[in-house]
Amino acid sequence: MKNYIKADEWNIIEEGFDPILNKISESLFSIGNGRMGQRANFEENYSGETLQGNYVAGVYYPDKTRVGWWKNGYPEYFAKVLNAANWIGLNIKIDDEVLDLSTCTVTDFTRVLNMKAGTLSRSFTAQLKSGKIIQVNALRFCSIAEDESAALHYKITAVNFDGNISITSFIDGDIKNQDANYDEKFWNQVKQEQEGDTDFLVLRTKKTEFDVCTAIQTTVLYDDEKQQLNEVSKEKYIGRTVVVALKQKTSVDIYKIAVNLSSQNYDKTELLTVARQKIEKAVEQGFAQLLEAQIRAWATKWEESDIVIEGDVKAQQAIRFNIFQLNQTYTGKDARLNIGPKGFTGEKYGGSTYWDTEAYCIPFYLSTAPEVVAENLLVYRYKHLEKAIENAGKLGFNNGAALYPMVTMNGEECHNEWEITFEEIHRNGAIAFAIFNYIRYTGKENYLAQYGLEVLIGIARFWRQRVNWSNDKQKYVILGVTGPNEYENNINNNWYTNKLAAWCLNYAIEAASIVKNQEPEKYKAILEKVQLNEMEEFADWKTIASQMYYPYDEEEKIFLQQDGFMDKEQILVKDLPSTERPLNQKWSWDRILRSCYIKQADVLQGMYFFEDDYNQETLKRNYHFYESRTVHESSLSPCVHSILAAKLSDEEKAYEFYLRTARLDLDDYNNDTEDGLHITSMAGTWMSIVEGFAGMRVRNGALKFNPFLPKAWKSFSFNVGFRGVQLKVQINATQIRILNYVDQTLQITIFNKSYAVPLGETVITYNGQLV
Amino acid sequence: MKNYIKADEWNIIEEGFDPILNKISESLFSIGNGRMGQRANFEENYSGETLQGNYVAGVYYPDKTRVGWWKNGYPEYFAKVLNAANWIGLNIKIDDEVLDLSTCTVTDFTRVLNMKAGTLSRSFTAQLKSGKIIQVNALRFCSIAEDESAALHYKITAVNFDGNISITSFIDGDIKNQDANYDEKFWNQVKQEQEGDTDFLVLRTKKTEFDVCTAIQTTVLYDDEKQQLNEVSKEKYIGRTVVVALKQKTSVDIYKIAVNLSSQNYDKTELLTVARQKIEKAVEQGFAQLLEAQIRAWATKWEESDIVIEGDVKAQQAIRFNIFQLNQTYTGKDARLNIGPKGFTGEKYGGSTYWDTEAYCIPFYLSTAPEVVAENLLVYRYKHLEKAIENAGKLGFNNGAALYPMVTMNGEECHNEWEITFEEIHRNGAIAFAIFNYIRYTGKENYLAQYGLEVLIGIARFWRQRVNWSNDKQKYVILGVTGPNEYENNINNNWYTNKLAAWCLNYAIEAASIVKNQEPEKYKAILEKVQLNEMEEFADWKTIASQMYYPYDEEEKIFLQQDGFMDKEQILVKDLPSTERPLNQKWSWDRILRSCYIKQADVLQGMYFFEDDYNQETLKRNYHFYESRTVHESSLSPCVHSILAAKLSDEEKAYEFYLRTARLDLDDYNNDTEDGLHITSMAGTWMSIVEGFAGMRVRNGALKFNPFLPKAWKSFSFNVGFRGVQLKVQINATQIRILNYVDQTLQITIFNKSYAVPLGETVITYNGQLV
Repeated sequence: MKNYIKADEWNIIEEGFDPILNKISESLFSIGNGRMGQRANFEENYSGETLQGNYVAGVYYPDKTRVGWWKNGYPEYFAKVLNAANWIGLNIKIDDEVLDLSTCTVTDFTRVLNMKAGTLSRSFTAQLKSGKIIQVNALRFCSIAEDESAALHYKITAVNFDGNISITSFIDGDIKNQDANYDEKFWNQVKQEQEGDTDFLVLRTKKTEFDVCTAIQTTVLYDDEKQQLNEVSKEKYIGRTVVVALKQKTSVDIYKIAVNLSSQNYDKTELLTVARQKIEKAVEQGFAQLLEAQIRAWATKWEESDIVIEGDVKAQQAIRFNIFQLNQTYTGKDARLNIGPKGFTGEKYGGSTYWDTEAYCIPFYLSTAPEVVAENLLVYRYKHLEKAIENAGKLGFNNGAALYPMVTMNGEECHNEWEITFEEIHRNGAIAFAIFNYIRYTGKENYLAQYGLEVLIGIARFWRQRVNWSNDKQKYVILGVTGPNEYENNINNNWYTNKLAAWCLNYAIEAASIVKNQEPEKYKAILEKVQLNEMEEFADWKTIASQMYYPYDEEEKIFLQQDGFMDKEQILVKDLPSTERPLNQKWSWDRILRSCYIKQADVLQGMYFFEDDYNQETLKRNYHFYESRTVHESSLSPCVHSILAAKLSDEEKAYEFYLRTARLDLDDYNNDTEDGLHITSMAGTWMSIVEGFAGMRVRNGALKFNPFLPKAWKSFSFNVGFRGVQLKVQINATQIRILNYVDQTLQITIFNKSYAVPLGETVITYNGQLV
Repeated sequence: MKNYIKADEWNIIEEGFDPILNKISESLFSIGNGRMGQRANFEENYSGETLQGNYVAGVYYPDKTRVGWWKNGYPEYFAKVLNAANWIGLNIKIDDEVLDLSTCTVTDFTRVLNMKAGTLSRSFTAQLKSGKIIQVNALRFCSIAEDESAALHYKITAVNFDGNISITSFIDGDIKNQDANYDEKFWNQVKQEQEGDTDFLVLRTKKTEFDVCTAIQTTVLYDDEKQQLNEVSKEKYIGRTVVVALKQKTSVDIYKIAVNLSSQNYDKTELLTVARQKIEKAVEQGFAQLLEAQIRAWATKWEESDIVIEGDVKAQQAIRFNIFQLNQTYTGKDARLNIGPKGFTGEKYGGSTYWDTEAYCIPFYLSTAPEVVAENLLVYRYKHLEKAIENAGKLGFNNGAALYPMVTMNGEECHNEWEITFEEIHRNGAIAFAIFNYIRYTGKENYLAQYGLEVLIGIARFWRQRVNWSNDKQKYVILGVTGPNEYENNINNNWYTNKLAAWCLNYAIEAASIVKNQEPEKYKAILEKVQLNEMEEFADWKTIASQMYYPYDEEEKIFLQQDGFMDKEQILVKDLPSTERPLNQKWSWDRILRSCYIKQADVLQGMYFFEDDYNQETLKRNYHFYESRTVHESSLSPCVHSILAAKLSDEEKAYEFYLRTARLDLDDYNNDTEDGLHITSMAGTWMSIVEGFAGMRVRNGALKFNPFLPKAWKSFSFNVGFRGVQLKVQINATQIRILNYVDQTLQITIFNKSYAVPLGETVITYNGQLV
């Protein structure tokens, strides 16, 4: 737990330089634009502790899977997110001294992430060993308007001396991953070129053969004059250098404009040509115009997605930080991309896609971005359907059964713990649920005919083969699974998985009937394509769904997380000494497994997904039973509990859970922010406010709210888009004010009462609960 | 499955050279003496497929454990059995041609493992590319009489030419392990020396710093004259060379005598001095005398342990092969050593000790070797008690609870699959059972006071903490275990584990009471040492043992392998298509786990250990239920089933299972003999005959037999030692002949009738069953 970030509504601010915090700040101050991103590494040399990180979306390396004991069906590789060429690099020498914050005296250090503008700035005064003092102001951004461009401005002022400042501006491709075994390097140089004022470096990843072309143009201005630069280069490194005779109290300005192009988007043979055009265009616009476009683009993002909290600056800062990071990570322009657990902020958890996307991120993007953004996340899975069928095939399933991977870059599984890879199959259900959720929100049932139904059929076929009939129970059972609570492995009849599986089977049939009615030709074509025997398979699916076994405890009247759960020693989390926690650091794995402690919502995840199936009493019993056994050792845990607590009107608990998720990274709650940020759980924070505090749902094609105001706040408001309408919903202790920006009247339900919300402001008075 | 080994009663014979079979033969023809051993690699150069293997008992390398996802409590390293310096090496050049069986035409190739004498011989004729033909006869052995010595004789005859034979005899320490990551080498050179006629090479293992000194003395005789040799050496390599002008139809004889000393047995500073003395002594004796001593020593081994089968040469060869390998692997001279799953025949399954030792090997050594041999295997675990307590501590147990490692070299755990390392805890029970078994056999209750009780207390304390009370079941349960059937992971209430745990708790109390009565002073000292609270702890143990939960199926009236077993799809093995097997190659791990198929005896292992607790009807029901679901994909499986089938008078099945275990390696049944032999399961083969066909047991301090003769055999007999008496028991269709070599009359029970067996021969007539 740290507490060094200054509270501010729109900015993340670090004051004073503490090398011990540097890697945490590198994560926190990361910038990105959905296409590329980078940690807040320094432009100039730094010999202290640092994790260098520049990332290009979709570029990975298939590292050979190494495990002690191989199991049949394990994937061939683990996808590593690759550290890519560093375009920000500057070597600064003052006479004979290299500027390196680790070797000089630093004062007035400030680092600011301006979330409104999407920029990272830094300023400091450095006294070198010689006594010379310089002042530096740096600002940079990855353009979200032109997402292959980035720019920086680095200004050096000589405070107390006249001297020669040597400046080298470069692209460094001779980088490696921190997680590389044996310091292996993953990039080969394809080409380097220096043409006009531009430096080009083309690198190729080993094995996967992605080409990435990085180009920079560096301008050095002194005394209003553009300085003449000399070319420098070596293997995987290219740049320009100049020495400027700096007079005391004057400044030299370095501008660096960069483009970063990947062969995922261009033919390899054209990469250089396109890079040339792009950098020329960017340079023509110049730093100032690029910056303006950046600010405009971020203004639009904020119009769609901002949440305003009055009366709590730290909460305000936290929620904006979460929203900002989500928008930096995924912009929804490209259905081949997805949301890595660390986004562009670190290497950890290599691979881009987990079930986090479907369970946590889709609701955020559905409400805060054009519909195509969430849709592209769904299409991503559609594009991987063939691979999911292959993956299921490797595990012995057939007839078009699809098992989506637990972790993937390109549709192939790249995780290899058997208890996760082979058994955490509920991910398949979350992917089906996301289709349902998307259609529920947008009303676009035609998504089924276009993409959704095929995916749902593959998933239903998987469940059909994955169940077996238990003679003992006279029900269908699902044996050998791992649920969302990964503190249980290889369990039988995980309630959540069984529930989700049955739901998938029914929903696939329902989806088929929608497509059959609405687009009979298309329906016929799909049936033919997937060779579905409508009569037999649907009948099968119905039987299984209706005769699914659900473990239940008669005494506690709760759904049982799995068979045998009540055999465990039932000591509640509150009675566990705090010295024993976090369990995943203090206890051996077997001890965790045989305990009753829960890592993240499991039965409760199911009750969150399918809340309409259960009354408040049932929810309450299950919530109290399971929450009291939950240690929340996953960043994805508190948000679901916050939403459920809100639903149970336990406002205090709902707010408590919100706090645990909101500043997870800003306060380095788990001592792991230095590895990168917890991007996917940030969507959960958003959900805690919108689905939790505001109680927003979509039912029968309309928005509904069951709001309450956390005691610590004066009001909160959020921007949300719904079926072509853009709303701002503000909630305070007595009123709900809805601003409709579009000339289209919406019917909205608040506490079960329906209201017409036309263009402009509608104010509804409420008092605690009732209107 | 292969079938190239010639049937012979005393020899393993390969005729004709097939490079494809070479690695299999290298395993099968391995020789060893308990202290060192080696694969049947060629002395001369060989550029074909080979797995080089020379091993020194107890020498290992702690390879860093690498797993994708680390779990708390995982051991730091995985112990690698190290390929050690090669002392047999000879480079042979005929004029300019290197002798290499991979590049010349080989005829009359014969390889013979003479099990009676303990020697490996090889002869062949090789025609070189030049047309020159030589004939080679080689013989070597690792002395079991002087277990730090070894010798070889290599004779080359020029068949059709006069020519210069260049001979280099060397020790090569520049070796590596096949399983080394990144071709890492594990030995550093400490010293090399050439003194008189002897070459010394001292190597040190990295990290563990074992020093091994290998010394050789090479004699080359031609025309009755000892040839003058020239010294050669390079890093980690030392030897002598000579060129002999060989006349057609004459021979040159190379004798190489070697010693191999480990710093486990000598001070490092004295290693060279001792090696000097040892090699001088060995050379003084000379090859012929060393060979004679070898034959004499093996004669003694065979007197103690031979089994003779009349009427089935292949069965005879197989059982002798198994006995021979067991005696080569472990001689019981050193309580720091144990029985590696591959002995001295390969690198696989690094680490020397599994529960195989207690469950399978101890019965063999108890009956076929002086009592000290089995006792040393027990003392091995006593010496590791402190480490077992530390190991339990890492997993959160305290108060002197001991959890022995799953795999170990020095008492530390070195296996890292959580489902095995942390959960396959029944191994602890097998270690306690071995103490019981040893005392039952030898009658030496004083072993408890000396060593056994402390171990039993540590184990009982572990179980006491490992159980938990189930409110649901109102019984003690053991959650999250893996039983002997490793095709189930992380299951609850494995019947075998629960049974064994309860037995351990009771036996520890019983053992305590024996020591208390027999050696009250010692008892007091032990209680003090382990700080045992007699009243409280014993009461606890009794309660738990008496209220242990045992899963049971009322319908089938069988003990359930674990909770929920009847939820599985119950398709019998006989109804599985053969294309699906072996499951561990054809099915993904999750599919195996959720199936009802059993890798090796689990419930039945318990019924084997505790057979007196169950009547024939109970055994029969359980045997039929479980055997029909067992795929026997562990080499340890068939033997237990053979013994149980024999007990159920299913002679045909008993014999069928015997066949599956007996020639497992000789016929390369599982296509893995090339990696090394299945040493520990060889003890199971012996058990199948002695405990199965002969029905030998020790009850109330006396031997009893319930024999039958397999239909395919005329008779079988086995040598067995029991409490100071040496017996030969011969069984044919109508008679049991017992030869007592000692002047001490034994009471022996045959089919529940007691007989006095004095010195000399006793013949008991029986007919199928009754006398």
